[in-house]
Amino acid sequence: MITKPTLLIDESKCRNNINDMLLKAKNHKVNFRPHFKTHQSALVGLWFKEAGIKKITVSSFEMAEYFASQFDDITVAFPVNVLEIETINKLSEKIQLNVLVESTFTVDFLKNKAKNKLGVFIKIDVGYNRTGIDFGSTSEINRILEIINNSENLNFIGFLTHAGHSYNCRSSKAVLDIFQECQKIMATLKSIYIKDYPNLIVSVGDTPGCSLSDNFSGIDEIRPGNFVFYDLDQYQIGSCNVSQIAVAMACPIVSIHNKRNEIVIYGGAVHFSKDQLNDEVHGVIYGKVVEQTKNGWGNIIPNMYLKSLSQEHGTVSVSKSEIKNYTVGDILYILPVHSCLTASATKNHKVI
Amino acid sequence: MITKPTLLIDESKCRNNINDMLLKAKNHKVNFRPHFKTHQSALVGLWFKEAGIKKITVSSFEMAEYFASQFDDITVAFPVNVLEIETINKLSEKIQLNVLVESTFTVDFLKNKAKNKLGVFIKIDVGYNRTGIDFGSTSEINRILEIINNSENLNFIGFLTHAGHSYNCRSSKAVLDIFQECQKIMATLKSIYIKDYPNLIVSVGDTPGCSLSDNFSGIDEIRPGNFVFYDLDQYQIGSCNVSQIAVAMACPIVSIHNKRNEIVIYGGAVHFSKDQLNDEVHGVIYGKVVEQTKNGWGNIIPNMYLKSLSQEHGTVSVSKSEIKNYTVGDILYILPVHSCLTASATKNHKVI
Repeated sequence: MITKPTLLIDESKCRNNINDMLLKAKNHKVNFRPHFKTHQSALVGLWFKEAGIKKITVSSFEMAEYFASQFDDITVAFPVNVLEIETINKLSEKIQLNVLVESTFTVDFLKNKAKNKLGVFIKIDVGYNRTGIDFGSTSEINRILEIINNSENLNFIGFLTHAGHSYNCRSSKAVLDIFQECQKIMATLKSIYIKDYPNLIVSVGDTPGCSLSDNFSGIDEIRPGNFVFYDLDQYQIGSCNVSQIAVAMACPIVSIHNKRNEIVIYGGAVHFSKDQLNDEVHGVIYGKVVEQTKNGWGNIIPNMYLKSLSQEHGTVSVSKSEIKNYTVGDILYILPVHSCLTASATKNHKVI
Repeated sequence: MITKPTLLIDESKCRNNINDMLLKAKNHKVNFRPHFKTHQSALVGLWFKEAGIKKITVSSFEMAEYFASQFDDITVAFPVNVLEIETINKLSEKIQLNVLVESTFTVDFLKNKAKNKLGVFIKIDVGYNRTGIDFGSTSEINRILEIINNSENLNFIGFLTHAGHSYNCRSSKAVLDIFQECQKIMATLKSIYIKDYPNLIVSVGDTPGCSLSDNFSGIDEIRPGNFVFYDLDQYQIGSCNVSQIAVAMACPIVSIHNKRNEIVIYGGAVHFSKDQLNDEVHGVIYGKVVEQTKNGWGNIIPNMYLKSLSQEHGTVSVSKSEIKNYTVGDILYILPVHSCLTASATKNHKVI
């Protein structure tokens, strides 16, 4: 019985999302190395394993440690934190560990300190401007490659990028424009280096691009993560339908305020996180309430949304006609804005 | 040695904050029942205990369970979640447990289901409009009191409010205006009910009001929480000085981008939370970098602030003259915008 804020995971929707992306990867002959930062769950990891996935992506060495008993080939898609060299050496003793470098400083450090074989991706910035080497900086890339070539344990795997600016898009066309631009850049890089590194691969990541594109030419590997759950943000971008969103927060009603058409739930910023969405109709929102069905949930209830969050409280706006259907002690099901952060913040998970 | 995002807690600043608020409460002859949702730490709880605190406030039954071995008088300042009645009955078996009601439905439920003595506060809304009964609705208050009076285990303690709208203030005057309005409302309520309930108390909560006011007339109990750490938000409101902020996030540098004067840290939304501040100069920010000293930290470094957060990454904006002082593998100390959410989100805590 649910008594506290709980992340409901719809197993069937989740497995469908996994199979859909896997099928897409197979059809386009790209390797599928899903990002596990979204779910961070050994159980969901098992569903991937059952679908045939053997190689994964995570975003910290902590997560790599968590999944190392389940998967023996892990890419940590985050610039190497050199302070965790001990963890790196422990992990690379037992699994194929791939890391990301974007400076001569870091790769030099790894050359000197890595005790076991390490796969190395060079992180490329294709316009997100968060991390990575500018794609035009071949001189910097060459300096990094030279250090890798002179090292005992480092093995150059290829170029990796994350076109995270696609998350700001609000149309399929905008997403596809970014994806194509990214493909073009990465293909150019590949064409320059393929002679010297015939096995190099190109790895790309974002869920919007991987969900919407039907052209993966020039790409060898995809690493989407969010698609396993999707969320309102991805729905707004156009990456998924509401019926594909595989998680909902179940939150107890603790108070009802008829006068201002508001319901207060036990479920706040510590559960949802504070990622927000700019809804066309309602402005800034933090989630949308869905109908409850026998085995899960259905459509979004019109005009019923999470309008604000404090630490443990959430305030749900509800229409005058709808509010009378609820009592203190009822549970609301709420689709989150950003499933990665919500799944990470909420301790209680329940598979349905 | 720090290798991952870590919340540093400056014990001496923290104890000073505790002692300052305790002294203020003593001088004004109000009971001090600190809110523990900010730190959620048994160690910080011990510092309060050593200062003489015996009664505390929390915002969930989960937190009450955590602190029940340390404190035997706990108010859960959150509208009762009736689905947790088993936890309520278990807790009230061993400690003095006080709960908040704001509807006849909930108090009726407790009347029927509470197995042990329970202290009951009626939650009053003084203008925050999140939870509570409108202060003018004496008919509703009377209905709740009637149910309490006819119950075996419920004991009316008094009226409780949280003037959370003070967090939106950006001047001492605005905070004090809200605090005085709140005092006036609560004093009026008290004057109406004191004849029938001579022991009733009035309990108020917010850190801005309790930090800035020097008039507590009509108030019997204060429940601030954030003051134990303070943060940039409270500094912007005017509740504290920078030197009173008792926590900083220590985050490793993983990448440096000289071209755009940005440093990328390991430390993201899952560590800081995504509460933001509208800085006069820099716009939306998520934290400010401070100088490191021998035993902790000092002043804010001008023009060095956390400009964006993704799940595990943080991007720090830094001036051209300052950026050359940093190397990958260095640690930055960053004052958080909202210490309650940051302390709750970050698993690694370190006392200095």
